[in-house]
Amino acid sequence: MAGPTTYFDPADASALDALPARTADLVRRRVAALGPAYRLFYREPVEFVRGSGAHLTDRDGNDWLDAYNNVPSVGHAHPRVAAAIAEQAARLTTHTRYLDEATVRYAEDLLGTFQGDDLAHVMFTCTGSEANDLALRIAKAATGGTGVIVTRHAYHGVTTEIAAISPSLGGERSIAPWVRLVDAPEPGVDFAASVHTALGSLAEAGIRPAALVVDTIFASDGVYPDAAGLAEATALVREAGGLLIADEVQAGFGRLGHGLWGYTRHGLEPDLVTLGKPMGNGYPVAGVVGRAAPIAAFADRGRYFNTFGGNPVAIAAAQATLDVVRDEGLVAHSAAQGAALVERITAIGDPRIADIRGAGLFIGVDLVDAAGAPDESLTLDVVNALRERHVLIATAGAHNATLKIRPPLAFDAADADRLLDALAGALGEIALRRA
Amino acid sequence: MAGPTTYFDPADASALDALPARTADLVRRRVAALGPAYRLFYREPVEFVRGSGAHLTDRDGNDWLDAYNNVPSVGHAHPRVAAAIAEQAARLTTHTRYLDEATVRYAEDLLGTFQGDDLAHVMFTCTGSEANDLALRIAKAATGGTGVIVTRHAYHGVTTEIAAISPSLGGERSIAPWVRLVDAPEPGVDFAASVHTALGSLAEAGIRPAALVVDTIFASDGVYPDAAGLAEATALVREAGGLLIADEVQAGFGRLGHGLWGYTRHGLEPDLVTLGKPMGNGYPVAGVVGRAAPIAAFADRGRYFNTFGGNPVAIAAAQATLDVVRDEGLVAHSAAQGAALVERITAIGDPRIADIRGAGLFIGVDLVDAAGAPDESLTLDVVNALRERHVLIATAGAHNATLKIRPPLAFDAADADRLLDALAGALGEIALRRA
Repeated sequence: MAGPTTYFDPADASALDALPARTADLVRRRVAALGPAYRLFYREPVEFVRGSGAHLTDRDGNDWLDAYNNVPSVGHAHPRVAAAIAEQAARLTTHTRYLDEATVRYAEDLLGTFQGDDLAHVMFTCTGSEANDLALRIAKAATGGTGVIVTRHAYHGVTTEIAAISPSLGGERSIAPWVRLVDAPEPGVDFAASVHTALGSLAEAGIRPAALVVDTIFASDGVYPDAAGLAEATALVREAGGLLIADEVQAGFGRLGHGLWGYTRHGLEPDLVTLGKPMGNGYPVAGVVGRAAPIAAFADRGRYFNTFGGNPVAIAAAQATLDVVRDEGLVAHSAAQGAALVERITAIGDPRIADIRGAGLFIGVDLVDAAGAPDESLTLDVVNALRERHVLIATAGAHNATLKIRPPLAFDAADADRLLDALAGALGEIALRRA
Repeated sequence: MAGPTTYFDPADASALDALPARTADLVRRRVAALGPAYRLFYREPVEFVRGSGAHLTDRDGNDWLDAYNNVPSVGHAHPRVAAAIAEQAARLTTHTRYLDEATVRYAEDLLGTFQGDDLAHVMFTCTGSEANDLALRIAKAATGGTGVIVTRHAYHGVTTEIAAISPSLGGERSIAPWVRLVDAPEPGVDFAASVHTALGSLAEAGIRPAALVVDTIFASDGVYPDAAGLAEATALVREAGGLLIADEVQAGFGRLGHGLWGYTRHGLEPDLVTLGKPMGNGYPVAGVVGRAAPIAAFADRGRYFNTFGGNPVAIAAAQATLDVVRDEGLVAHSAAQGAALVERITAIGDPRIADIRGAGLFIGVDLVDAAGAPDESLTLDVVNALRERHVLIATAGAHNATLKIRPPLAFDAADADRLLDALAGALGEIALRRA
């Protein structure tokens, strides 16, 4: 999730007229059926019909390089995950009120990846939004507090509760009164001091803190992998009675190339960790991993049941995905491919590229104008020029002037060549056009 | 979802000791991994390994009759749905920011089932909880109000917002201050008068109403298919500026044997309709269908995107499920099988059965003691005695003294014979034991 990128605007009649006839017809039908709250990527939307690895095929048979989608993390339609889903869907789909050995085995396997922490339990949901919503319910039950601290452009999900802690959706006016915003820990920001101020503001309002919630790659804030001051900020929040929720929906399952979990890069020990997007390679499965104490406090007040959450097909998809991450060595692969990409983008040496940063295959590239100011227009032009070259990337950040490069982890060296060629070509073409 | 039925209590050490060794071991591992907020059905939990139609097979190869699960509505592991999921998962799983013709086609097909209403759009989520959460966000945006009226034992879901309108989860103390509870429209209740009082109470507190939310079969309240006064209550809510949200997560997709949607039985014209459980026969897919005006009001304030919601595999599962409902004539089948079941349960003529009511294959049976009072203990005994006979049902209602019979719609005449035999046997055995 990011700030506005390059979208088709269904309210713009001339945009519709500019589309090829078949696309215009399908868009028109789609807007009629799904209504005005939906968006399509790109001024000219794309229709894909199949995928493999980091590649997608459109309706006309063209091959596209996907350097954007993080959900199909082990590769589009990965055959092991697809087979696991097919096999279990043909056998049984029930729920967590019956025993299921595979569910227990996966839960133990997943919890084992947090070894060394005292993260004892996992609870299953269907979406990252539900996972963050549940984590916040747990944190509020465990602390008796209601205050939440998030970063200024955070995105954590779309339920009512989580939209109210996601300023990237509707800006500060959409945020609940029990939420305080702090600057993301980019270089130059004293994150601990900001959190200290936020805690003071909550205290002044008579609001006890429940949690500091951080996306451990700060994706929608603009991708900040180095994030200094997190451990110190966490200590302050704990002193005030709050918990640390590490939102690993974006960063988790190996994308950052350093173990499976982004928070380990910052020396954190979260109370609750939320999982989502890549967990089942596209099957709706997500969850909360947490310490025993807050979950016990939550359980004292009531039970939890999620009809589809952690059903046997979800578990089969999640187990196959985790197995593939390990068997194909995707964590080390992500680290190596990501480092090579950062190096090669740096080597382009374009003065419009002000900063390149990343961890594994999550890379942010800041673009600036001649005066060195963030250049949203240039950034959108690059994304569209890459679209013309059949390469998918997106934008991020406070100024929407950061290229977000976040391919499936199946992205390989040949894919990197193609991305680099396309990026250099796009930057060159735009420079010529503007000259 | 219902009140407490017959659960395994993980905090009860003697319950664990009473289990067969293999079950005890798996339960112990499960409690360690999933934590204390989860429950298992039955004092002796069951482990199923495959299913077909209304039948499940446990780990030891025993055949069970499923007269409880409404999610696998067209039958456990229905081959057409499983094949549709397998085929699409092997091809592509993306999301609603790209064009997809099958998504548009399904949306049009689904909206066509609401023909005659002006329900214009559908928005996709993964769970019924997310659907109700989104519907409430839409209603609040459209009305500017925040007040919500629900029935006294309602269950609408588990997000923070929706748990706060679900008294069946935590009783009145768990309900938000902007919620008012009314008695379910059982015989003798003047539902419109109750809603009038609730509106008055909201007005007194300075709270403008956003919506009346009703499960159109009143499942957790105790199954009330006749529900008088709904249309009149809706008119009062509209007069006060609120909307009607018909929660069809339980009642929808033909279960009630009268078209696809429960609200049509009551002559209602809802503003928003929420869908879930049976929509993809177990695949996590759900949604909100609504009038154009409230969705436009919501869209004016922001976009909606749900990462997994309405992805191409979800759509394939939902389309196959809807096709099977029509091709196998499951609406008429549900009506016929349900009517026959009600008649045959009535014919048992047991004085402990105080009332039998239902619509299609959603049936509630009230059990009473010798003095005619709701008998929760008897009801739990019947559920457990049926478990001993390898038949699954559950409980519902304010007193937890209503048997809830709600099988997959694939339930057939032979299944009815088996359920009737088991029910008569259970009632006889319990009478003997208590005599």
